[in-house]
Amino acid sequence: MKSYKEFTKEELEKELEVLRAQYKQYQELGLELNMARGKPCPEQLNLSMGMMDVLSSSEDLSCEDGTDCRNYGVLEGIEECKELLSSVIECPPENIIIYGNSSLSVMFETVARSMTHGVMGSTPWCKLEKVKFLCPVPGYDRHFAITEYFGIEMINVPTNENGPDMDLVEKLVSTDPAIKGIWCVPKYSNPSGIVYSNEVVKRFAALRPAARDFRIYWDNAYSVHHLYPDNQPVILEILDECRKAGNPDMVYKFSSTSKISFPGSGIACLATSLNNLADIKKQLTIQTIGHDKVNQLRHVRFFKDLDGIKAHMKKHADILRPKFELVERILDEELTGLDIGTWSKPLGGYFIMFNTLHGCAAHVISRCKKCGVVMTPAGSTYPYHKDPSDSDIRIAPSYPCYQDLETATRIFALSVKIESIKLLLRYC
Amino acid sequence: MKSYKEFTKEELEKELEVLRAQYKQYQELGLELNMARGKPCPEQLNLSMGMMDVLSSSEDLSCEDGTDCRNYGVLEGIEECKELLSSVIECPPENIIIYGNSSLSVMFETVARSMTHGVMGSTPWCKLEKVKFLCPVPGYDRHFAITEYFGIEMINVPTNENGPDMDLVEKLVSTDPAIKGIWCVPKYSNPSGIVYSNEVVKRFAALRPAARDFRIYWDNAYSVHHLYPDNQPVILEILDECRKAGNPDMVYKFSSTSKISFPGSGIACLATSLNNLADIKKQLTIQTIGHDKVNQLRHVRFFKDLDGIKAHMKKHADILRPKFELVERILDEELTGLDIGTWSKPLGGYFIMFNTLHGCAAHVISRCKKCGVVMTPAGSTYPYHKDPSDSDIRIAPSYPCYQDLETATRIFALSVKIESIKLLLRYC
Repeated sequence: MKSYKEFTKEELEKELEVLRAQYKQYQELGLELNMARGKPCPEQLNLSMGMMDVLSSSEDLSCEDGTDCRNYGVLEGIEECKELLSSVIECPPENIIIYGNSSLSVMFETVARSMTHGVMGSTPWCKLEKVKFLCPVPGYDRHFAITEYFGIEMINVPTNENGPDMDLVEKLVSTDPAIKGIWCVPKYSNPSGIVYSNEVVKRFAALRPAARDFRIYWDNAYSVHHLYPDNQPVILEILDECRKAGNPDMVYKFSSTSKISFPGSGIACLATSLNNLADIKKQLTIQTIGHDKVNQLRHVRFFKDLDGIKAHMKKHADILRPKFELVERILDEELTGLDIGTWSKPLGGYFIMFNTLHGCAAHVISRCKKCGVVMTPAGSTYPYHKDPSDSDIRIAPSYPCYQDLETATRIFALSVKIESIKLLLRYC
Repeated sequence: MKSYKEFTKEELEKELEVLRAQYKQYQELGLELNMARGKPCPEQLNLSMGMMDVLSSSEDLSCEDGTDCRNYGVLEGIEECKELLSSVIECPPENIIIYGNSSLSVMFETVARSMTHGVMGSTPWCKLEKVKFLCPVPGYDRHFAITEYFGIEMINVPTNENGPDMDLVEKLVSTDPAIKGIWCVPKYSNPSGIVYSNEVVKRFAALRPAARDFRIYWDNAYSVHHLYPDNQPVILEILDECRKAGNPDMVYKFSSTSKISFPGSGIACLATSLNNLADIKKQLTIQTIGHDKVNQLRHVRFFKDLDGIKAHMKKHADILRPKFELVERILDEELTGLDIGTWSKPLGGYFIMFNTLHGCAAHVISRCKKCGVVMTPAGSTYPYHKDPSDSDIRIAPSYPCYQDLETATRIFALSVKIESIKLLLRYC
């Protein structure tokens, strides 16, 4: 197709008229579709229904070491669950704490604790004039919401296909002692889908922060969430790299089974150095007697080991891959050659990243909504919801059924076309 | 029996010799017994094994309103679970948030949030020179640990059989704006077993705090944990009393099913005014996408309603009551008339409170330990572990089997006798 940018004013106006008619037809259907959140679909949830059968009243709910999972205790999580999740988070079990159902909560608590008690003896952040975090963009809105909630100043760091701009990260982290952290999603990044290169991981591990309480918040949300079993990127393990680079305490790794078993009823974990763990346990022992060990045991009995998780994730991929490919195919069909957008083709994770012409994204999202298609709100992938070029849109293909997904994507593409033409007409 | 206080020096010395011989015999048994924590025993845990069967792969895991409990969402908890727990915490469902597995965590978070963000718009406590909490004593060590962790100054308030000394509470709360909270266990108080009188509840509700961000931390840990089904004290509902007294926002109520279903795999909740809830939700929506709804549904399907919970708690009582009565009987047999200790005979909850002669408790606990009987550490029931009269010992009869409990209590009574005589001899 010819690029819209080569259209004359009259051609654009004529095209707009045709598209508006199509849009009106969709509108009359009164649809209610949602591509906003990375929510597994019912078919994916069905994959884990066996979890409801592995524990029953005729089963012994004890660990291998005899611990009765039904009773109080075991602050760090049961051994067999630490072993299971150690394989997912790629760290030894002794570096792990098992938490409740939400890794987001673990990240929140980690920041909250740093605010009130500092990090391994540092001044509590609430006593400091200014605390800053680096935020690779586009990124995960819920990360940014945590730092915003605590009044932490967020600094955008551009991301390329290999990860954050490390020249900038190194420069900022080494010179500004107010910078206490950076949010990272190293694999199948939310929302861009990129995978950090090994060089980026090594440069992270070798950072020389001005603040000794600087920590990398390494959110391993999609470590085993591949779409293509035969094309699985492998990246260096950051905790080990930090140790080798002489920065053993510089990283917190977060993970959970939220998109492996049941979202909301999964298990979260944190992996970090023994020094950091000792610091964290000072809080944890005050906060709780222990997390839900019965649910930990349930996960162990259901998945058994990493092979069990891998086999399970392959089933997830078989459901998700066609959805991603459907969206990509429709975007190809509708938009290729028009020169009004680009989009990612991720190998895993939960999102497709779409880039409109600058100044178009908010209008596209708003137009989708008026046609019954809910997208992630404009600006969500940036701190303070401010997308400086107003061009990033996160597409979440996982939840809708194929038919809804096709319709929603057609409406999305149509909205991109309409808003792009309106923008181009302004410059005619 | 004759009071030890009427013994001559020679009689005391002779008695001590006999008791030491008995103690030595127990020591040689190499026992390992534990009366330290309010931990349910395996027979109690067995009562809830049916919970493992109510959800299976052939069941629909949806709420009555169609919500799929397996997926993300529902920040405040599913409706039917709010209804179930509203009957336990005695507040309307709309005043409730359902949390994860630990009410202790909810209390911790409540204090943590007040530290970083204040209470309904007040200055964050971390920005204040001084924050204080009133601590009715004896009280729950884990409450005191939370306030100590956050550097909050704790002020002891004596407790009588009707609750805290309200003259003192009223005076302190109304004059000192640094006092931001008070820890309360209103029913079957930990560890004294007392039940607050309705007059005390009314005086709490009518407080006129100098600090507008003062809150009553009302830990309803044992609301349905009666030992005697025919003798169940009923106390006024504090949230409603606060409303009637013109202090609608002054109380947070906490509860959980930890000692109803499985400790560590139960469900916690908080009940408070809609204003407080709105304040709390500002944080909660940043911290998590939602708590474990599958476990919420599991509890609803197992217990069904308050009648289900009451019937279940009667079974707990049938297991616990004989243990409490056993301890009370042995203490009666061993110590009545000796004038060296008093103890509570609670109608519910998890503890018997023992009071030694002043200056004896730490020695008794240490002596028990050397004979293989672990008690709650000395001073635990006071802020900073400082029992000013060194006389309070918390006995937790729930966990050991009858035989172990009998042995442990005999050793405890023996230790009380030995240490009391040693004390009395010092004044001879």
